[in-house]
Amino acid sequence: MNVLEERILQDGVVLNGEVLKVDAFLNHQIDPVLMQKIGEEFAARFTDKKITKIITIESSGIAPAVFTGLILGVPVIVAKKNTSITMTDSLVSANVYSFTKQQHYTITISKKFLSSDDHVLIIDDFLANGQAALGLLDICEEMDCSVSGVGIVIEKSFQDGREKLTDKGIDIYSMARIKSLENNTVTFM
Amino acid sequence: MNVLEERILQDGVVLNGEVLKVDAFLNHQIDPVLMQKIGEEFAARFTDKKITKIITIESSGIAPAVFTGLILGVPVIVAKKNTSITMTDSLVSANVYSFTKQQHYTITISKKFLSSDDHVLIIDDFLANGQAALGLLDICEEMDCSVSGVGIVIEKSFQDGREKLTDKGIDIYSMARIKSLENNTVTFM
Repeated sequence: MNVLEERILQDGVVLNGEVLKVDAFLNHQIDPVLMQKIGEEFAARFTDKKITKIITIESSGIAPAVFTGLILGVPVIVAKKNTSITMTDSLVSANVYSFTKQQHYTITISKKFLSSDDHVLIIDDFLANGQAALGLLDICEEMDCSVSGVGIVIEKSFQDGREKLTDKGIDIYSMARIKSLENNTVTFM
Repeated sequence: MNVLEERILQDGVVLNGEVLKVDAFLNHQIDPVLMQKIGEEFAARFTDKKITKIITIESSGIAPAVFTGLILGVPVIVAKKNTSITMTDSLVSANVYSFTKQQHYTITISKKFLSSDDHVLIIDDFLANGQAALGLLDICEEMDCSVSGVGIVIEKSFQDGREKLTDKGIDIYSMARIKSLENNTVTFM
Protein backbone atom coordinates (compact mmCIF):
# COMPACT_ATOMS: atom_id res chain seq x y z
CA MET A 1 0.00 0.00 0.00
CA ASN A 2 1.46 3.36 -1.02
CA VAL A 3 1.26 6.69 0.88
CA LEU A 4 -1.78 7.81 -1.10
CA GLU A 5 -3.74 4.62 -0.41
CA GLU A 6 -2.87 4.90 3.28
CA ARG A 7 -4.07 8.49 3.28
CA ILE A 8 -7.33 7.58 1.53
CA LEU A 9 -8.04 4.98 4.22
CA GLN A 10 -7.15 7.47 6.94
CA ASP A 11 -8.90 10.63 5.71
CA GLY A 12 -11.15 9.68 2.80
CA VAL A 13 -14.90 9.56 3.40
CA VAL A 14 -17.16 7.27 1.38
CA LEU A 15 -20.30 9.29 0.67
CA ASN A 16 -22.00 6.51 -1.24
CA GLY A 17 -21.13 3.59 -3.54
CA GLU A 18 -19.90 6.00 -6.21
CA VAL A 19 -18.45 9.03 -4.41
CA LEU A 20 -15.27 9.24 -2.34
CA LYS A 21 -14.65 12.51 -0.56
CA VAL A 22 -10.98 13.46 -0.30
CA ASP A 23 -11.39 17.12 0.57
CA ALA A 24 -8.96 16.83 3.51
CA PHE A 25 -5.87 16.41 1.30
CA LEU A 26 -6.68 16.77 -2.42
CA ASN A 27 -9.84 18.61 -3.46
CA HIS A 28 -10.35 21.39 -0.97
CA GLN A 29 -7.59 21.27 1.61
CA ILE A 30 -4.33 20.22 -0.10
CA ASP A 31 -1.43 18.43 1.58
CA PRO A 32 1.66 19.75 -0.26
CA VAL A 33 3.90 16.94 1.08
CA LEU A 34 1.58 14.30 -0.34
CA MET A 35 1.28 16.22 -3.63
CA GLN A 36 5.07 16.29 -3.92
CA LYS A 37 5.19 12.51 -3.42
CA ILE A 38 2.51 12.03 -6.08
CA GLY A 39 4.51 14.30 -8.40
CA GLU A 40 7.64 12.21 -7.81
CA GLU A 41 5.69 9.05 -8.57
CA PHE A 42 4.23 10.41 -11.83
CA ALA A 43 7.60 11.82 -12.91
CA ALA A 44 9.35 8.48 -12.29
CA ARG A 45 6.63 6.54 -14.12
CA PHE A 46 6.74 8.74 -17.24
CA THR A 47 10.37 9.88 -17.20
CA ASP A 48 11.24 7.78 -20.29
CA LYS A 49 8.46 9.29 -22.39
CA LYS A 50 10.26 12.55 -23.23
CA ILE A 51 7.31 14.60 -21.98
CA THR A 52 7.36 18.23 -23.17
CA LYS A 53 4.10 19.50 -21.65
CA ILE A 54 1.73 18.53 -18.84
CA ILE A 55 -1.95 19.32 -19.21
CA THR A 56 -4.48 19.29 -16.38
CA ILE A 57 -7.95 20.73 -15.79
CA GLU A 58 -8.61 23.35 -13.13
CA SER A 59 -8.53 23.07 -10.28
CA SER A 60 -7.80 19.86 -8.30
CA GLY A 61 -5.25 18.54 -10.81
CA ILE A 62 -3.03 21.61 -10.52
CA ALA A 63 -1.15 20.65 -7.33
CA PRO A 64 -0.02 17.16 -8.44
CA ALA A 65 0.66 18.52 -11.94
CA VAL A 66 3.02 21.32 -10.85
CA PHE A 67 5.11 18.99 -8.69
CA THR A 68 5.36 16.54 -11.60
CA GLY A 69 6.26 19.39 -13.94
CA LEU A 70 8.95 20.62 -11.59
CA ILE A 71 10.70 17.25 -11.63
CA LEU A 72 10.25 16.61 -15.36
CA GLY A 73 11.30 20.20 -16.12
CA VAL A 74 8.25 21.01 -18.25
CA PRO A 75 5.44 23.60 -18.11
CA VAL A 76 1.93 22.76 -16.92
CA ILE A 77 -1.02 23.93 -19.01
CA VAL A 78 -4.26 24.34 -17.08
CA ALA A 79 -7.33 23.77 -19.27
CA LYS A 80 -9.87 26.39 -18.25
CA LYS A 81 -13.49 25.75 -17.43
CA ASN A 82 -14.19 29.46 -17.67
CA THR A 83 -12.41 31.68 -20.13
CA SER A 84 -11.19 35.06 -18.91
CA ILE A 85 -10.69 38.47 -20.47
CA THR A 86 -6.98 37.73 -20.84
CA MET A 87 -7.63 34.72 -23.10
CA THR A 88 -7.30 36.81 -26.24
CA ASP A 89 -5.46 34.29 -28.38
CA SER A 90 -6.78 31.61 -30.67
CA LEU A 91 -8.40 28.90 -28.53
CA VAL A 92 -9.06 25.18 -28.79
CA SER A 93 -11.98 23.72 -26.84
CA ALA A 94 -13.64 20.41 -26.05
CA ASN A 95 -16.99 19.55 -24.60
CA VAL A 96 -17.02 17.46 -21.41
CA TYR A 97 -20.01 15.79 -19.80
CA SER A 98 -19.94 15.49 -16.04
CA PHE A 99 -21.95 12.46 -14.86
CA THR A 100 -21.64 13.68 -11.28
CA LYS A 101 -23.08 17.11 -11.98
CA GLN A 102 -25.18 15.90 -14.92
CA GLN A 103 -24.16 18.81 -17.05
CA HIS A 104 -21.91 19.68 -19.96
CA TYR A 105 -19.03 22.09 -19.66
CA THR A 106 -16.34 23.35 -22.00
CA ILE A 107 -12.60 23.12 -21.43
CA THR A 108 -10.36 25.53 -23.27
CA ILE A 109 -6.66 25.95 -23.97
CA SER A 110 -4.83 28.70 -25.87
CA LYS A 111 -3.51 27.13 -29.06
CA LYS A 112 -0.14 28.85 -28.72
CA PHE A 113 0.85 26.54 -25.84
CA LEU A 114 0.62 23.31 -27.87
CA SER A 115 2.29 22.24 -31.09
CA SER A 116 2.69 19.07 -33.14
CA ASP A 117 6.14 18.60 -31.56
CA ASP A 118 4.66 18.17 -28.08
CA HIS A 119 4.56 14.94 -26.10
CA VAL A 120 1.83 15.51 -23.55
CA LEU A 121 1.29 13.98 -20.13
CA ILE A 122 -2.29 14.46 -18.91
CA ILE A 123 -2.70 14.65 -15.13
CA ASP A 124 -5.99 14.71 -13.25
CA ASP A 125 -7.22 14.12 -9.72
CA PHE A 126 -9.89 11.50 -10.54
CA LEU A 127 -10.59 9.04 -13.32
CA ALA A 128 -14.20 7.84 -13.27
CA ASN A 129 -16.07 7.83 -16.57
CA GLY A 130 -13.07 9.31 -18.35
CA GLN A 131 -14.94 12.28 -19.80
CA ALA A 132 -12.44 14.92 -18.70
CA ALA A 133 -9.47 12.94 -20.00
CA LEU A 134 -11.28 12.25 -23.29
CA GLY A 135 -11.90 15.99 -23.66
CA LEU A 136 -8.18 16.66 -23.20
CA LEU A 137 -7.40 13.92 -25.74
CA ASP A 138 -9.72 15.66 -28.22
CA ILE A 139 -7.80 18.90 -27.70
CA CYS A 140 -4.45 17.15 -28.22
CA GLU A 141 -5.77 15.49 -31.36
CA GLU A 142 -6.96 18.82 -32.74
CA MET A 143 -3.54 20.32 -31.99
CA ASP A 144 -1.86 17.29 -33.59
CA CYS A 145 0.32 16.62 -30.54
CA SER A 146 0.94 13.16 -29.13
CA VAL A 147 -0.36 12.01 -25.74
CA SER A 148 2.40 10.05 -24.03
CA GLY A 149 0.38 9.09 -21.00
CA VAL A 150 -2.28 9.86 -18.42
CA GLY A 151 -1.42 10.17 -14.72
CA ILE A 152 -4.36 9.86 -12.35
CA VAL A 153 -4.30 10.41 -8.60
CA ILE A 154 -7.37 8.31 -7.78
CA GLU A 155 -9.01 5.92 -10.23
CA LYS A 156 -12.49 4.60 -9.58
CA SER A 157 -11.84 1.33 -11.35
CA PHE A 158 -15.48 0.24 -11.05
CA GLN A 159 -16.33 2.90 -13.64
CA ASP A 160 -15.31 2.63 -17.28
CA GLY A 161 -12.87 5.53 -17.73
CA ARG A 162 -9.76 3.32 -17.86
CA GLU A 163 -11.35 1.07 -20.47
CA LYS A 164 -12.25 4.02 -22.70
CA LEU A 165 -8.69 5.37 -22.56
CA THR A 166 -7.04 1.97 -22.99
CA ASP A 167 -9.21 1.39 -26.08
CA LYS A 168 -7.52 4.45 -27.54
CA GLY A 169 -4.09 3.00 -26.78
CA ILE A 170 -3.37 5.42 -23.95
CA ASP A 171 -0.83 4.49 -21.27
CA ILE A 172 -2.51 5.14 -17.90
CA TYR A 173 -0.93 5.19 -14.47
CA SER A 174 -3.19 5.65 -11.46
CA MET A 175 -1.57 6.02 -8.08
CA ALA A 176 -4.60 4.57 -6.27
CA ARG A 177 -7.06 2.24 -7.96
CA ILE A 178 -10.33 1.76 -6.15
CA LYS A 179 -12.14 -1.48 -6.86
CA SER A 180 -15.22 -0.69 -4.82
CA LEU A 181 -16.81 1.81 -2.43
CA GLU A 182 -19.60 -0.57 -1.46
CA ASN A 183 -20.64 -0.89 2.21
CA ASN A 184 -18.94 2.43 3.01
CA THR A 185 -15.59 0.72 2.57
CA VAL A 186 -12.72 1.57 0.26
CA THR A 187 -11.38 -1.56 -1.43
CA PHE A 188 -8.30 -1.17 -3.63
CA MET A 189 -7.52 -3.26 -6.72
CA MET B 1 14.92 43.08 -10.14
CA ASN B 2 13.84 39.61 -9.01
CA VAL B 3 13.13 36.54 -11.18
CA LEU B 4 9.42 37.26 -11.29
CA GLU B 5 9.89 40.84 -12.45
CA GLU B 6 12.32 39.67 -15.11
CA ARG B 7 9.78 37.10 -16.27
CA ILE B 8 6.98 39.68 -16.39
CA LEU B 9 9.10 41.89 -18.64
CA GLN B 10 10.00 38.89 -20.80
CA ASP B 11 6.63 37.14 -21.16
CA GLY B 12 3.95 39.46 -19.76
CA VAL B 13 1.66 41.22 -22.23
CA VAL B 14 0.05 44.56 -21.39
CA LEU B 15 -3.49 44.37 -22.75
CA ASN B 16 -4.41 47.88 -21.64
CA GLY B 17 -3.62 50.34 -18.84
CA GLU B 18 -5.28 48.04 -16.30
CA VAL B 19 -4.73 44.47 -17.48
CA LEU B 20 -1.48 42.51 -17.57
CA LYS B 21 -1.63 39.11 -19.22
CA VAL B 22 0.67 36.52 -17.63
CA ASP B 23 -0.87 33.39 -19.09
CA ALA B 24 2.54 32.09 -20.24
CA PHE B 25 3.75 31.31 -16.71
CA LEU B 26 1.06 31.94 -14.06
CA ASN B 27 -2.60 31.95 -15.12
CA HIS B 28 -2.95 29.41 -17.88
CA GLN B 29 0.44 27.85 -18.57
CA ILE B 30 2.34 27.49 -15.28
CA ASP B 31 6.12 27.46 -14.91
CA PRO B 32 6.73 25.12 -11.93
CA VAL B 33 10.33 26.33 -11.46
CA LEU B 34 9.17 29.93 -11.10
CA MET B 35 6.33 28.87 -8.79
CA GLN B 36 8.83 27.08 -6.55
CA LYS B 37 10.94 30.24 -6.36
CA ILE B 38 7.88 32.30 -5.48
CA GLY B 39 7.00 29.73 -2.80
CA GLU B 40 10.50 29.99 -1.36
CA GLU B 41 10.21 33.78 -1.28
CA PHE B 42 6.82 33.73 0.48
CA ALA B 43 7.98 31.09 2.96
CA ALA B 44 11.11 33.09 3.84
CA ARG B 45 9.13 36.32 4.23
CA PHE B 46 6.52 34.80 6.58
CA THR B 47 8.58 32.10 8.30
CA ASP B 48 8.54 33.95 11.65
CA LYS B 49 4.76 34.25 11.72
CA LYS B 50 4.07 30.69 12.90
CA ILE B 51 1.68 30.09 10.00
CA THR B 52 -0.60 27.08 10.50
CA LYS B 53 -2.71 27.27 7.31
CA ILE B 54 -2.45 28.83 3.86
CA ILE B 55 -5.63 29.91 2.10
CA THR B 56 -5.92 30.71 -1.59
CA ILE B 57 -8.74 31.00 -4.12
CA GLU B 58 -9.05 28.65 -7.08
CA SER B 59 -7.34 28.43 -9.37
CA SER B 60 -4.30 30.61 -10.18
CA GLY B 61 -3.20 30.94 -6.55
CA ILE B 62 -2.89 27.18 -6.07
CA ALA B 63 0.57 26.68 -7.61
CA PRO B 64 2.43 29.35 -5.59
CA ALA B 65 0.44 28.35 -2.49
CA VAL B 66 1.37 24.65 -2.56
CA PHE B 67 5.09 25.39 -2.93
CA THR B 68 4.87 27.83 -0.01
CA GLY B 69 2.94 25.26 2.02
CA LEU B 70 5.51 22.58 1.29
CA ILE B 71 8.32 24.70 2.73
CA LEU B 72 6.33 26.01 5.71
CA GLY B 73 4.99 22.51 6.39
CA VAL B 74 1.32 23.53 6.43
CA PRO B 75 -1.81 22.57 4.47
CA VAL B 76 -3.28 24.77 1.74
CA ILE B 77 -7.02 25.43 1.77
CA VAL B 78 -8.49 26.31 -1.62
CA ALA B 79 -11.55 28.56 -1.31
CA LYS B 80 -14.04 27.30 -3.88
CA LYS B 81 -15.89 29.44 -6.38
CA ASN B 82 -18.26 26.56 -7.09
CA THR B 83 -19.32 24.15 -4.40
CA SER B 84 -19.39 20.46 -5.28
CA ILE B 85 -21.45 17.47 -4.21
CA THR B 86 -18.68 16.44 -1.83
CA MET B 87 -18.92 19.69 0.18
CA THR B 88 -21.30 18.17 2.67
CA ASP B 89 -19.95 19.83 5.79
CA SER B 90 -20.85 23.11 7.40
CA LEU B 91 -19.60 25.91 5.13
CA VAL B 92 -18.47 29.51 5.55
CA SER B 93 -18.83 31.87 2.58
CA ALA B 94 -18.04 35.41 1.52
CA ASN B 95 -19.26 37.54 -1.34
CA VAL B 96 -16.61 38.90 -3.72
CA TYR B 97 -17.11 41.52 -6.39
CA SER B 98 -14.93 41.21 -9.48
CA PHE B 99 -14.32 44.62 -11.06
CA THR B 100 -12.77 42.89 -14.08
CA LYS B 101 -15.76 40.68 -14.76
CA GLN B 102 -18.24 43.14 -13.22
CA GLN B 103 -20.01 40.43 -11.32
CA HIS B 104 -20.37 39.04 -7.83
CA TYR B 105 -19.28 35.55 -6.92
CA THR B 106 -19.20 33.53 -3.74
CA ILE B 107 -16.13 31.90 -2.20
CA THR B 108 -16.65 29.02 0.18
CA ILE B 109 -14.59 27.02 2.67
CA SER B 110 -15.58 24.05 4.82
CA LYS B 111 -15.58 25.25 8.41
CA LYS B 112 -13.80 22.14 9.66
CA PHE B 113 -10.52 23.26 8.10
CA LEU B 114 -10.24 26.49 10.15
CA SER B 115 -10.25 27.10 13.88
CA SER B 116 -9.55 29.97 16.27
CA ASP B 117 -6.05 28.54 16.83
CA ASP B 118 -5.08 29.09 13.20
CA HIS B 119 -2.59 31.68 11.94
CA VAL B 120 -3.45 32.10 8.29
CA LEU B 121 -1.32 33.18 5.35
CA ILE B 122 -3.45 34.26 2.39
CA ILE B 123 -1.82 33.75 -1.03
CA ASP B 124 -3.20 34.96 -4.33
CA ASP B 125 -1.94 35.56 -7.86
CA PHE B 126 -3.05 39.20 -8.21
CA LEU B 127 -3.85 42.08 -5.88
CA ALA B 128 -5.83 44.79 -7.66
CA ASN B 129 -8.89 46.16 -5.87
CA GLY B 130 -8.40 43.73 -3.02
CA GLN B 131 -11.87 42.23 -3.22
CA ALA B 132 -10.76 38.59 -3.21
CA ALA B 133 -8.40 39.11 -0.26
CA LEU B 134 -11.10 41.03 1.64
CA GLY B 135 -13.47 38.12 1.08
CA LEU B 136 -10.92 35.72 2.56
CA LEU B 137 -10.41 38.11 5.49
CA ASP B 138 -14.18 38.04 6.09
CA ILE B 139 -14.07 34.24 6.21
CA CYS B 140 -11.13 34.27 8.65
CA GLU B 141 -12.95 36.79 10.83
CA GLU B 142 -16.08 34.65 10.88
CA MET B 143 -13.95 31.63 11.83
CA ASP B 144 -12.19 33.71 14.50
CA CYS B 145 -8.72 32.83 13.18
CA SER B 146 -5.92 35.35 12.83
CA VAL B 147 -4.53 36.48 9.48
CA SER B 148 -0.75 36.65 9.78
CA GLY B 149 -0.14 38.01 6.31
CA VAL B 150 -1.02 38.20 2.66
CA GLY B 151 1.40 37.01 -0.04
CA ILE B 152 0.70 38.31 -3.54
CA VAL B 153 2.47 37.24 -6.72
CA ILE B 154 1.70 40.41 -8.73
CA GLU B 155 0.37 43.61 -7.19
CA LYS B 156 -1.16 46.29 -9.37
CA SER B 157 -0.10 49.10 -7.09
CA PHE B 158 -2.02 51.70 -9.10
CA GLN B 159 -5.23 50.16 -7.76
CA ASP B 160 -6.30 50.45 -4.13
CA GLY B 161 -6.15 46.84 -2.89
CA ARG B 162 -2.99 47.33 -0.83
CA GLU B 163 -4.43 50.43 0.84
CA LYS B 164 -7.61 48.60 1.81
CA LEU B 165 -5.65 45.72 3.37
CA THR B 166 -3.12 47.98 5.09
CA ASP B 167 -6.01 49.95 6.61
CA LYS B 168 -7.01 46.70 8.30
CA GLY B 169 -3.50 46.25 9.67
CA ILE B 170 -2.63 43.39 7.33
CA ASP B 171 1.02 42.61 6.55
CA ILE B 172 1.30 42.36 2.76
CA TYR B 173 4.20 41.06 0.72
CA SER B 174 3.98 41.30 -3.05
CA MET B 175 6.74 39.73 -5.08
CA ALA B 176 6.21 42.14 -7.99
CA ARG B 177 4.66 45.59 -7.52
CA ILE B 178 3.52 47.26 -10.71
CA LYS B 179 3.36 51.03 -10.60
CA SER B 180 1.89 51.48 -14.04
CA LEU B 181 0.85 49.72 -17.24
CA GLU B 182 0.50 52.96 -19.19
CA ASN B 183 1.84 53.19 -22.75
CA ASN B 184 1.93 49.38 -23.02
CA THR B 185 4.85 49.37 -20.64
CA VAL B 186 5.28 47.63 -17.31
CA THR B 187 6.81 49.97 -14.73
CA PHE B 188 7.65 48.50 -11.32
CA MET B 189 7.57 50.42 -8.02
